[in-house]
Amino acid sequence: MSRIAYFGPQGTFTEQAARALAAPGDELVPAVTIRAALAMVREGAADGACVPVENSVEGAITPTLDGLNEGSPLVAVAEWLLPVHFSILVRPGTTEVKTVASYPPALSQVRLWLEENLPDARQIATSSTAAAAVAVDAGEVDAAVCAPVAAEHYPLEVLATGVADLRDAQTRFLLFKQPGEVPAPTGADRTSIIASTPNRTGTLAELLTELAFRGINLTKLDARPTRNNFGEYHFFIDFEGHIAEPRIGDALAALRRRCSNVRFLGSHPRADGVAATVQPDAGNEDFDQAASWVEAVRKGDLA
Amino acid sequence: MSRIAYFGPQGTFTEQAARALAAPGDELVPAVTIRAALAMVREGAADGACVPVENSVEGAITPTLDGLNEGSPLVAVAEWLLPVHFSILVRPGTTEVKTVASYPPALSQVRLWLEENLPDARQIATSSTAAAAVAVDAGEVDAAVCAPVAAEHYPLEVLATGVADLRDAQTRFLLFKQPGEVPAPTGADRTSIIASTPNRTGTLAELLTELAFRGINLTKLDARPTRNNFGEYHFFIDFEGHIAEPRIGDALAALRRRCSNVRFLGSHPRADGVAATVQPDAGNEDFDQAASWVEAVRKGDLA
Repeated sequence: MSRIAYFGPQGTFTEQAARALAAPGDELVPAVTIRAALAMVREGAADGACVPVENSVEGAITPTLDGLNEGSPLVAVAEWLLPVHFSILVRPGTTEVKTVASYPPALSQVRLWLEENLPDARQIATSSTAAAAVAVDAGEVDAAVCAPVAAEHYPLEVLATGVADLRDAQTRFLLFKQPGEVPAPTGADRTSIIASTPNRTGTLAELLTELAFRGINLTKLDARPTRNNFGEYHFFIDFEGHIAEPRIGDALAALRRRCSNVRFLGSHPRADGVAATVQPDAGNEDFDQAASWVEAVRKGDLA
Repeated sequence: MSRIAYFGPQGTFTEQAARALAAPGDELVPAVTIRAALAMVREGAADGACVPVENSVEGAITPTLDGLNEGSPLVAVAEWLLPVHFSILVRPGTTEVKTVASYPPALSQVRLWLEENLPDARQIATSSTAAAAVAVDAGEVDAAVCAPVAAEHYPLEVLATGVADLRDAQTRFLLFKQPGEVPAPTGADRTSIIASTPNRTGTLAELLTELAFRGINLTKLDARPTRNNFGEYHFFIDFEGHIAEPRIGDALAALRRRCSNVRFLGSHPRADGVAATVQPDAGNEDFDQAASWVEAVRKGDLA
């Protein structure tokens, strides 16, 4: 049995994702912030942390990215995709909604719905979607924009459900652990790194070309400021493939050589099961055969 | 005299930046959101819009990026950098602060200060830093995290000033207009585009290599989701140089050829005055001489 920390309190989308990512019998432990969930794993207070990493509408979840670049390295071992459809919760018998609370990215994702249905309600930021349900339950605000699972935890009434400005919005979650055994490759994997480069013309082009020349498909790139100067960034780079594959190991070694620092954030199966694109002459057997050929020529067995 | 819209209300950092970017006698008009400020220019209700584009701690201001990718194209003509030091405003005579309000990115930037000085205050999100001052003035919340200029507009008391978790934090602002005359090149310019590429291995590497092969220094890259699928992004790319320069025109033509769509967001002088890095053999005279040589060979004058 493992302890899995998640960005809580109970009743958030992250709890829904953590339930899906946990093994039967695992204990789920809410953490107050994304950083706190990651810290619990670093400090050994939890075996894993489930945190949101990206939303298809709002983009990167920057507290997660910044949290992964602090402290000791953590490694993603599993991924989950959740459709983002909200429920609006109120205290039973509520007739007028003067204030509506939620986590700010959630408020952004129901902006049109709020403009149409609660145009006069003042918007209050809470530290999570479920914290908004807590505030409604405590009588501090009138309505909460929540994950559907929140209705299971708080004695509130569902004013509306399935609320989403964009029907196809999804959030991607990752389960992070201390570095250790990497999950086995499946053919539909994603590898993530943080690359820090010297500030000189062309460095990012060079990194991405190392991937492109090996036919490796980039799935995401985010630049986060170093907090020193404008124009200096850490690059969060996600690409198809698994570090156990020869083609990916070859690319990672090239990136390590070109970067001032590389932090490995994990190789894990993709939740959507999309198999990696592999270019002609850039398959793992091509890399293996080429390396064997060099070895044989070195020994004088071939020329 | 021009009408300059800015992300208001009165008393925001954006008003401070708009004051700096406006010409003497210009009329400054607050807009409720970043999108609304940009819309005023698109609809002819204002001649320019001053909006924040990037913060050295929090990174890209995503509502600005998304707003620039909607509706008709707008073009940046001037830039301003503002140090981000906040004032904490309260009603005169306030003794206890139970709630503190501000624009969420501002709350993030004084997180440590709030933890130390107002650990028990509940945080309320407002649509701008100045809206927080309005809420304090109206008695709805106890304290506001504001731009220093807010103290000039509202009858509030300064509880603390010069508040910033990181002393060197800066925000970069741009003044956008309808497409028209591009400001003259100064040798210390920045060019910005939105590039949309077909979803295929290597496209972003190819774009950045077009810049790097011409010795053009990238200053910023942000990926914003297309809202269709994970893995599909619009790339906001900033680089040194001016579209009037031969080397930059050559690069932009190559990007236009490789992209499914390019939106030009302007070439304007950098607020920090940093001159463009130019690589050997990649100066404007090198591009001009090379083009003249091809022309002469085409005519049979040279070989």
